[in-house]
Amino acid sequence: MTKNITTQTLSRLPLYFNYLTSLPEDKKNGNISATAIAEALGLNDVQVRKDLASVSRGGRPKVGYSASELMGDIGKFLGFENHDGVVVAGMGNLGRAMLECDGFADYGFDILCGFDCDKQLVGTEINGRIIRDISEMTEFCRSNNIKIGIITVPETSAQEVCNKMAEAGIEYILNFAAVRLNAPEGVMVHNENISLTLAMLARCKFSEQ
Amino acid sequence: MTKNITTQTLSRLPLYFNYLTSLPEDKKNGNISATAIAEALGLNDVQVRKDLASVSRGGRPKVGYSASELMGDIGKFLGFENHDGVVVAGMGNLGRAMLECDGFADYGFDILCGFDCDKQLVGTEINGRIIRDISEMTEFCRSNNIKIGIITVPETSAQEVCNKMAEAGIEYILNFAAVRLNAPEGVMVHNENISLTLAMLARCKFSEQ
Repeated sequence: MTKNITTQTLSRLPLYFNYLTSLPEDKKNGNISATAIAEALGLNDVQVRKDLASVSRGGRPKVGYSASELMGDIGKFLGFENHDGVVVAGMGNLGRAMLECDGFADYGFDILCGFDCDKQLVGTEINGRIIRDISEMTEFCRSNNIKIGIITVPETSAQEVCNKMAEAGIEYILNFAAVRLNAPEGVMVHNENISLTLAMLARCKFSEQ
Repeated sequence: MTKNITTQTLSRLPLYFNYLTSLPEDKKNGNISATAIAEALGLNDVQVRKDLASVSRGGRPKVGYSASELMGDIGKFLGFENHDGVVVAGMGNLGRAMLECDGFADYGFDILCGFDCDKQLVGTEINGRIIRDISEMTEFCRSNNIKIGIITVPETSAQEVCNKMAEAGIEYILNFAAVRLNAPEGVMVHNENISLTLAMLARCKFSEQ
Protein backbone atom coordinates (compact mmCIF):
# COMPACT_ATOMS: atom_id res chain seq x y z
CA MET A 1 0.00 0.00 0.00
CA THR A 2 1.43 3.31 -1.02
CA LYS A 3 -0.43 6.55 -0.68
CA ASN A 4 0.47 10.12 -1.18
CA ILE A 5 -0.24 12.34 1.76
CA THR A 6 1.93 15.00 3.30
CA THR A 7 4.42 14.02 5.98
CA GLN A 8 2.66 16.49 8.27
CA THR A 9 -0.67 14.69 7.92
CA LEU A 10 1.04 11.36 8.30
CA SER A 11 2.77 12.40 11.49
CA ARG A 12 -0.58 13.33 13.01
CA LEU A 13 -2.43 10.09 12.12
CA PRO A 14 -0.91 8.16 15.04
CA LEU A 15 -1.99 10.97 17.39
CA TYR A 16 -5.58 10.55 16.23
CA PHE A 17 -5.34 6.78 16.41
CA ASN A 18 -3.89 6.86 19.92
CA TYR A 19 -6.46 9.35 21.06
CA LEU A 20 -9.32 7.22 19.73
CA THR A 21 -7.97 4.04 21.34
CA SER A 22 -7.67 5.88 24.66
CA LEU A 23 -11.38 6.81 24.70
CA PRO A 24 -13.61 5.03 27.22
CA GLU A 25 -15.71 2.21 25.72
CA ASP A 26 -18.97 4.16 25.51
CA LYS A 27 -17.31 6.97 23.55
CA LYS A 28 -15.63 4.47 21.25
CA ASN A 29 -19.08 3.23 20.31
CA GLY A 30 -20.39 6.72 19.60
CA ASN A 31 -19.68 9.55 17.20
CA ILE A 32 -16.91 12.08 17.45
CA SER A 33 -16.28 15.32 15.57
CA ALA A 34 -13.05 16.58 14.07
CA THR A 35 -13.49 19.65 16.28
CA ALA A 36 -13.62 17.55 19.44
CA ILE A 37 -10.48 15.66 18.41
CA ALA A 38 -8.74 18.93 17.56
CA GLU A 39 -9.61 20.38 20.95
CA ALA A 40 -8.50 17.30 22.85
CA LEU A 41 -5.13 17.28 21.09
CA GLY A 42 -4.61 21.03 20.96
CA LEU A 43 -4.52 21.10 17.16
CA ASN A 44 -6.09 23.38 14.58
CA ASP A 45 -9.54 22.03 13.72
CA VAL A 46 -9.39 22.90 10.01
CA GLN A 47 -6.21 20.86 9.82
CA VAL A 48 -7.72 17.92 11.67
CA ARG A 49 -10.78 17.97 9.40
CA LYS A 50 -8.54 17.84 6.31
CA ASP A 51 -6.35 15.10 7.77
CA LEU A 52 -9.31 12.86 8.63
CA ALA A 53 -10.96 13.44 5.25
CA SER A 54 -7.79 12.22 3.55
CA VAL A 55 -8.05 8.79 5.17
CA SER A 56 -11.75 8.28 5.86
CA ARG A 57 -14.97 8.91 4.02
CA GLY A 58 -17.09 8.38 7.12
CA GLY A 59 -17.43 12.02 8.20
CA ARG A 60 -20.97 13.44 8.20
CA PRO A 61 -21.93 17.08 8.75
CA LYS A 62 -23.18 17.84 12.29
CA VAL A 63 -22.63 14.19 13.30
CA GLY A 64 -18.92 13.66 12.81
CA TYR A 65 -17.32 10.26 12.53
CA SER A 66 -18.22 6.95 14.09
CA ALA A 67 -15.22 6.66 16.45
CA SER A 68 -14.74 2.95 15.78
CA GLU A 69 -15.01 3.33 12.01
CA LEU A 70 -12.55 6.19 12.05
CA MET A 71 -10.11 4.10 14.06
CA GLY A 72 -10.54 1.30 11.55
CA ASP A 73 -9.93 3.63 8.61
CA ILE A 74 -6.78 5.11 10.11
CA GLY A 75 -5.55 1.64 11.03
CA LYS A 76 -6.23 0.37 7.52
CA PHE A 77 -4.46 3.38 6.06
CA LEU A 78 -1.42 2.71 8.23
CA GLY A 79 -1.54 -0.96 7.23
CA PHE A 80 -2.32 -2.48 10.62
CA GLU A 81 -4.18 -5.31 8.83
CA ASN A 82 -1.15 -6.26 6.72
CA HIS A 83 1.22 -9.18 7.27
CA ASP A 84 4.49 -7.58 6.23
CA GLY A 85 7.59 -9.62 6.94
CA VAL A 86 10.38 -7.86 8.82
CA VAL A 87 13.96 -8.92 9.59
CA VAL A 88 16.26 -7.59 12.31
CA ALA A 89 20.03 -7.36 11.86
CA GLY A 90 22.17 -7.28 14.99
CA MET A 91 21.36 -9.47 17.99
CA GLY A 92 22.62 -7.30 20.82
CA ASN A 93 20.18 -6.34 23.57
CA LEU A 94 18.18 -4.01 21.37
CA GLY A 95 17.86 -6.53 18.53
CA ARG A 96 16.88 -9.25 20.99
CA ALA A 97 14.24 -6.93 22.42
CA MET A 98 12.80 -6.55 18.91
CA LEU A 99 12.55 -10.33 18.46
CA GLU A 100 10.98 -10.67 21.90
CA CYS A 101 8.35 -8.07 21.19
CA ASP A 102 4.95 -9.36 20.10
CA GLY A 103 3.50 -5.90 19.72
CA PHE A 104 4.57 -5.52 16.09
CA ALA A 105 1.81 -7.92 15.01
CA ASP A 106 -0.85 -5.41 16.07
CA TYR A 107 0.53 -3.07 13.45
CA GLY A 108 0.61 -5.63 10.66
CA PHE A 109 4.26 -6.68 10.97
CA ASP A 110 5.61 -10.22 11.22
CA ILE A 111 9.10 -10.20 12.70
CA LEU A 112 10.45 -13.27 10.89
CA CYS A 113 13.98 -13.73 12.14
CA GLY A 114 17.15 -12.09 13.35
CA PHE A 115 20.60 -11.98 11.76
CA ASP A 116 24.01 -11.84 13.38
CA CYS A 117 27.59 -12.74 12.54
CA ASP A 118 28.26 -14.36 15.92
CA LYS A 119 28.39 -18.13 15.26
CA GLN A 120 27.47 -18.78 18.90
CA LEU A 121 24.11 -17.09 18.35
CA VAL A 122 23.36 -18.46 14.90
CA GLY A 123 20.79 -21.25 15.10
CA THR A 124 19.44 -20.20 18.51
CA GLU A 125 15.92 -18.85 18.93
CA ILE A 126 14.31 -15.90 20.68
CA ASN A 127 10.55 -15.99 21.15
CA GLY A 128 10.32 -18.70 18.49
CA ARG A 129 12.28 -16.61 16.01
CA ILE A 130 15.50 -18.07 14.70
CA ILE A 131 18.81 -16.21 14.52
CA ARG A 132 20.46 -16.75 11.14
CA ASP A 133 23.94 -16.02 9.86
CA ILE A 134 24.11 -12.56 8.35
CA SER A 135 25.65 -14.08 5.21
CA GLU A 136 22.24 -15.67 4.53
CA MET A 137 20.38 -12.38 4.66
CA THR A 138 20.27 -11.65 0.94
CA GLU A 139 18.92 -15.03 0.01
CA PHE A 140 16.43 -15.15 2.86
CA CYS A 141 15.04 -11.71 2.10
CA ARG A 142 14.83 -12.32 -1.62
CA SER A 143 13.10 -15.67 -1.34
CA ASN A 144 10.65 -14.37 1.27
CA ASN A 145 10.11 -11.06 -0.49
CA ILE A 146 11.06 -9.02 2.59
CA LYS A 147 10.81 -5.28 2.15
CA ILE A 148 11.39 -4.05 5.70
CA GLY A 149 14.53 -4.26 7.82
CA ILE A 150 15.51 -3.08 11.28
CA ILE A 151 19.17 -2.31 12.00
CA THR A 152 20.44 -2.81 15.55
CA VAL A 153 24.11 -3.55 14.79
CA PRO A 154 26.97 -1.41 16.19
CA GLU A 155 27.49 1.88 14.37
CA THR A 156 30.72 0.71 12.75
CA SER A 157 28.94 -1.92 10.68
CA ALA A 158 25.58 -0.21 10.21
CA GLN A 159 26.25 1.26 6.76
CA GLU A 160 27.53 -2.06 5.48
CA VAL A 161 24.43 -3.86 6.77
CA CYS A 162 22.26 -1.12 5.27
CA ASN A 163 23.87 -1.64 1.87
CA LYS A 164 23.41 -5.40 2.18
CA MET A 165 19.74 -4.91 2.98
CA ALA A 166 19.37 -2.78 -0.13
CA GLU A 167 20.99 -5.53 -2.23
CA ALA A 168 18.57 -7.98 -0.66
CA GLY A 169 15.63 -5.98 -1.98
CA ILE A 170 14.68 -4.25 1.26
CA GLU A 171 13.02 -0.89 0.67
CA TYR A 172 12.43 0.48 4.16
CA ILE A 173 14.96 0.52 6.97
CA LEU A 174 14.52 1.57 10.55
CA ASN A 175 18.02 2.29 11.86
CA PHE A 176 18.81 2.29 15.58
CA ALA A 177 22.59 2.44 15.21
CA ALA A 178 23.91 5.79 16.44
CA VAL A 179 25.07 6.86 13.01
CA ARG A 180 23.25 8.60 10.22
CA LEU A 181 23.03 6.16 7.31
CA ASN A 182 23.16 7.12 3.68
CA ALA A 183 20.15 5.60 2.00
CA PRO A 184 21.03 3.49 -1.04
CA GLU A 185 18.96 4.30 -4.11
CA GLY A 186 15.37 3.16 -3.85
CA VAL A 187 15.60 2.65 -0.09
CA MET A 188 14.02 4.83 2.58
CA VAL A 189 16.01 4.97 5.82
CA HIS A 190 14.62 6.33 9.04
CA ASN A 191 17.38 7.09 11.53
CA GLU A 192 15.76 6.55 14.91
CA ASN A 193 17.35 8.50 17.70
CA ILE A 194 16.04 7.77 21.16
CA SER A 195 18.36 10.30 22.82
CA LEU A 196 17.01 13.03 20.59
CA THR A 197 13.41 12.08 21.34
CA LEU A 198 14.25 12.31 25.02
CA ALA A 199 15.91 15.69 24.51
CA MET A 200 12.82 17.06 22.81
CA LEU A 201 10.55 15.61 25.44
CA ALA A 202 12.41 16.50 28.56
CA ARG A 203 13.79 19.91 27.81
CA CYS A 204 11.00 21.82 26.25
CA LYS A 205 7.69 22.88 27.61
CA PHE A 206 5.30 22.65 24.71
CA SER A 207 3.01 25.59 24.22
CA GLU A 208 -0.61 24.74 23.50
CA GLN A 209 -1.33 24.60 19.73
CA MET B 1 15.80 24.75 30.77
CA THR B 2 12.22 25.29 29.80
CA LYS B 3 11.18 27.23 26.75
CA ASN B 4 7.91 27.87 25.06
CA ILE B 5 7.83 27.03 21.41
CA THR B 6 5.19 25.17 19.44
CA THR B 7 5.38 21.40 19.23
CA GLN B 8 5.53 21.78 15.46
CA THR B 9 8.68 23.91 15.62
CA LEU B 10 10.15 21.59 18.19
CA SER B 11 9.54 18.53 16.04
CA ARG B 12 11.47 20.14 13.19
CA LEU B 13 14.54 21.19 15.21
CA PRO B 14 16.08 17.71 15.10
CA LEU B 15 15.60 17.66 11.33
CA TYR B 16 17.61 20.85 11.04
CA PHE B 17 20.21 19.59 13.46
CA ASN B 18 20.58 16.28 11.64
CA TYR B 19 20.78 17.99 8.30
CA LEU B 20 23.51 20.36 9.52
CA THR B 21 25.54 17.53 11.05
CA SER B 22 25.30 15.62 7.76
CA LEU B 23 26.88 18.46 5.75
CA PRO B 24 30.41 17.94 4.42
CA GLU B 25 33.12 19.66 6.49
CA ASP B 26 33.60 22.63 4.14
CA LYS B 27 29.89 23.47 4.22
CA LYS B 28 29.81 23.12 7.98
CA ASN B 29 32.43 25.87 8.14
CA GLY B 30 30.45 28.15 5.82
CA ASN B 31 27.14 29.97 5.83
CA ILE B 32 23.77 28.49 5.05
CA SER B 33 20.40 30.12 4.40
CA ALA B 34 17.00 29.12 5.75
CA THR B 35 15.91 28.78 2.12
CA ALA B 36 18.64 26.25 1.37
CA ILE B 37 17.72 24.22 4.44
CA ALA B 38 14.04 24.39 3.50
CA GLU B 39 14.78 23.15 0.00
CA ALA B 40 17.01 20.32 1.17
CA LEU B 41 14.36 19.09 3.61
CA GLY B 42 11.33 19.76 1.44
CA LEU B 43 9.83 22.23 3.89
CA ASN B 44 8.19 25.62 3.53
CA ASP B 45 10.91 28.29 3.72
CA VAL B 46 8.83 30.83 5.65
CA GLN B 47 8.29 28.18 8.28
CA VAL B 48 11.98 27.27 8.42
CA ARG B 49 12.94 30.94 8.76
CA LYS B 50 10.55 31.34 11.71
CA ASP B 51 11.73 28.11 13.36
CA LEU B 52 15.40 29.08 13.16
CA ALA B 53 14.75 32.62 14.38
CA SER B 54 13.08 31.17 17.47
CA VAL B 55 16.26 29.39 18.56
CA SER B 56 19.11 31.43 17.07
CA ARG B 57 19.93 35.10 16.68
CA GLY B 58 22.70 34.42 14.20
CA GLY B 59 20.72 34.91 10.98
CA ARG B 60 21.83 37.79 8.76
CA PRO B 61 20.00 39.05 5.64
CA LYS B 62 21.52 37.81 2.35
CA VAL B 63 24.14 35.81 4.27
CA GLY B 64 22.12 33.37 6.32
CA TYR B 65 23.49 31.53 9.32
CA SER B 66 26.95 30.28 10.13
CA ALA B 67 26.22 26.55 9.87
CA SER B 68 28.33 25.66 12.90
CA GLU B 69 26.85 28.44 15.05
CA LEU B 70 23.34 27.40 14.07
CA MET B 71 24.11 23.81 15.00
CA GLY B 72 25.44 25.04 18.34
CA ASP B 73 22.35 27.15 18.97
CA ILE B 74 19.95 24.31 18.19
CA GLY B 75 22.01 21.92 20.31
CA LYS B 76 22.03 24.39 23.20
CA PHE B 77 18.29 24.87 22.84
CA LEU B 78 17.73 21.12 22.99
CA GLY B 79 20.04 20.91 26.01
CA PHE B 80 22.85 18.84 24.49
CA GLU B 81 25.31 20.58 26.84
CA ASN B 82 23.38 19.59 29.97
CA HIS B 83 24.21 16.80 32.40
CA ASP B 84 20.73 15.59 33.25
CA GLY B 85 20.55 12.39 35.28
CA VAL B 86 18.30 9.65 33.92
CA VAL B 87 17.16 6.34 35.42
CA VAL B 88 15.84 3.28 33.60
CA ALA B 89 13.22 0.97 35.15
CA GLY B 90 13.04 -2.59 33.81
CA MET B 91 16.18 -4.56 33.00
CA GLY B 92 14.92 -6.73 30.16
CA ASN B 93 16.73 -6.58 26.85
CA LEU B 94 15.49 -3.11 26.01
CA GLY B 95 16.41 -1.68 29.42
CA ARG B 96 19.84 -3.33 29.23
CA ALA B 97 20.32 -1.78 25.79
CA MET B 98 19.64 1.64 27.32
CA LEU B 99 22.29 1.12 30.02
CA GLU B 100 24.76 -0.11 27.40
CA CYS B 101 24.24 2.89 25.19
CA ASP B 102 26.82 5.66 25.50
CA GLY B 103 25.09 7.84 22.92
CA PHE B 104 22.84 9.58 25.44
CA ALA B 105 25.81 11.61 26.71
CA ASP B 106 26.03 13.44 23.38
CA TYR B 107 22.58 14.81 24.07
CA GLY B 108 23.31 15.91 27.62
CA PHE B 109 21.98 12.86 29.45
CA ASP B 110 23.74 10.83 32.13
CA ILE B 111 22.17 7.39 32.44
CA LEU B 112 22.84 6.85 36.13
CA CYS B 113 21.49 3.40 36.92
CA GLY B 114 18.85 0.78 36.22
CA PHE B 115 16.11 -0.57 38.47
CA ASP B 116 14.54 -4.00 38.56
CA CYS B 117 12.68 -6.22 41.01
CA ASP B 118 14.70 -9.35 40.12
CA LYS B 119 17.02 -9.97 43.08
CA GLN B 120 19.39 -11.90 40.79
CA LEU B 121 20.03 -8.73 38.80
CA VAL B 122 20.17 -6.27 41.67
CA GLY B 123 23.77 -5.33 42.44
CA THR B 124 25.11 -6.34 39.03
CA GLU B 125 26.43 -3.78 36.55
CA ILE B 126 25.98 -3.04 32.87
CA ASN B 127 28.48 -0.71 31.25
CA GLY B 128 29.56 0.50 34.68
CA ARG B 129 25.98 1.29 35.65
CA ILE B 130 24.58 -0.50 38.66
CA ILE B 131 21.19 -2.22 38.78
CA ARG B 132 19.34 -1.31 41.95
CA ASP B 133 16.24 -2.72 43.60
CA ILE B 134 13.14 -0.95 42.38
CA SER B 135 12.14 -0.36 46.00
CA GLU B 136 15.07 2.07 46.24
CA MET B 137 13.92 4.16 43.30
CA THR B 138 12.10 6.89 45.22
CA GLU B 139 14.96 7.55 47.57
CA PHE B 140 17.59 7.41 44.85
CA CYS B 141 15.73 9.79 42.57
CA ARG B 142 14.92 12.22 45.35
CA SER B 143 18.44 12.38 46.73
CA ASN B 144 19.95 12.72 43.26
CA ASN B 145 17.31 15.14 42.02
CA ILE B 146 16.43 12.97 39.02
CA LYS B 147 13.77 14.42 36.76
CA ILE B 148 13.85 11.99 33.84
CA GLY B 149 12.89 8.32 33.74
CA ILE B 150 12.72 5.66 31.05
CA ILE B 151 10.23 2.80 31.42
CA THR B 152 11.12 -0.56 29.89
CA VAL B 153 9.15 -2.85 32.21
CA PRO B 154 6.42 -5.23 30.94
CA GLU B 155 3.13 -3.54 30.16
CA THR B 156 1.40 -5.06 33.19
CA SER B 157 3.58 -3.12 35.62
CA ALA B 158 4.22 0.02 33.56
CA GLN B 159 1.51 2.20 35.11
CA GLU B 160 2.60 1.25 38.62
CA VAL B 161 6.22 2.14 37.80
CA CYS B 162 5.05 5.36 36.19
CA ASN B 163 3.19 6.33 39.36
CA LYS B 164 6.24 5.46 41.47
CA MET B 165 8.41 7.65 39.26
CA ALA B 166 5.98 10.51 39.76
CA GLU B 167 6.17 10.04 43.54
CA ALA B 168 9.94 10.07 43.23
CA GLY B 169 9.83 13.55 41.71
CA ILE B 170 10.37 12.53 38.08
CA GLU B 171 8.79 14.98 35.66
CA TYR B 172 9.45 13.44 32.25
CA ILE B 173 8.93 9.82 31.30
CA LEU B 174 9.78 8.04 28.09
CA ASN B 175 7.63 4.91 28.05
CA PHE B 176 8.53 1.91 25.90
CA ALA B 177 5.99 -0.48 27.43
CA ALA B 178 3.29 -1.35 24.92
CA VAL B 179 0.57 0.38 26.88
CA ARG B 180 -0.58 3.94 26.90
CA LEU B 181 0.20 5.38 30.33
CA ASN B 182 -1.91 7.93 32.13
CA ALA B 183 0.37 10.75 33.12
CA PRO B 184 0.21 11.59 36.83
CA GLU B 185 -0.25 15.28 37.57
CA GLY B 186 2.83 17.35 36.82
CA VAL B 187 4.44 14.57 34.77
CA MET B 188 4.84 14.51 31.01
CA VAL B 189 4.73 11.01 29.51
CA HIS B 190 5.80 10.22 25.98
CA ASN B 191 4.51 6.84 24.87
CA GLU B 192 7.12 5.62 22.41
CA ASN B 193 5.79 3.17 19.88
CA ILE B 194 8.39 1.64 17.60
CA SER B 195 5.81 -0.43 15.68
CA LEU B 196 3.88 2.70 14.86
CA THR B 197 7.00 4.51 13.67
CA LEU B 198 7.68 1.55 11.42
CA ALA B 199 4.08 1.60 10.13
CA MET B 200 4.38 5.26 9.22
CA LEU B 201 7.74 4.75 7.60
CA ALA B 202 7.13 1.62 5.64
CA ARG B 203 3.61 2.02 4.44
CA CYS B 204 3.32 5.52 3.15
CA LYS B 205 5.09 7.25 0.36
CA PHE B 206 5.60 10.80 1.55
CA SER B 207 4.67 13.46 -0.92
CA GLU B 208 7.15 16.28 -1.25
CA GLN B 209 6.29 19.22 1.05
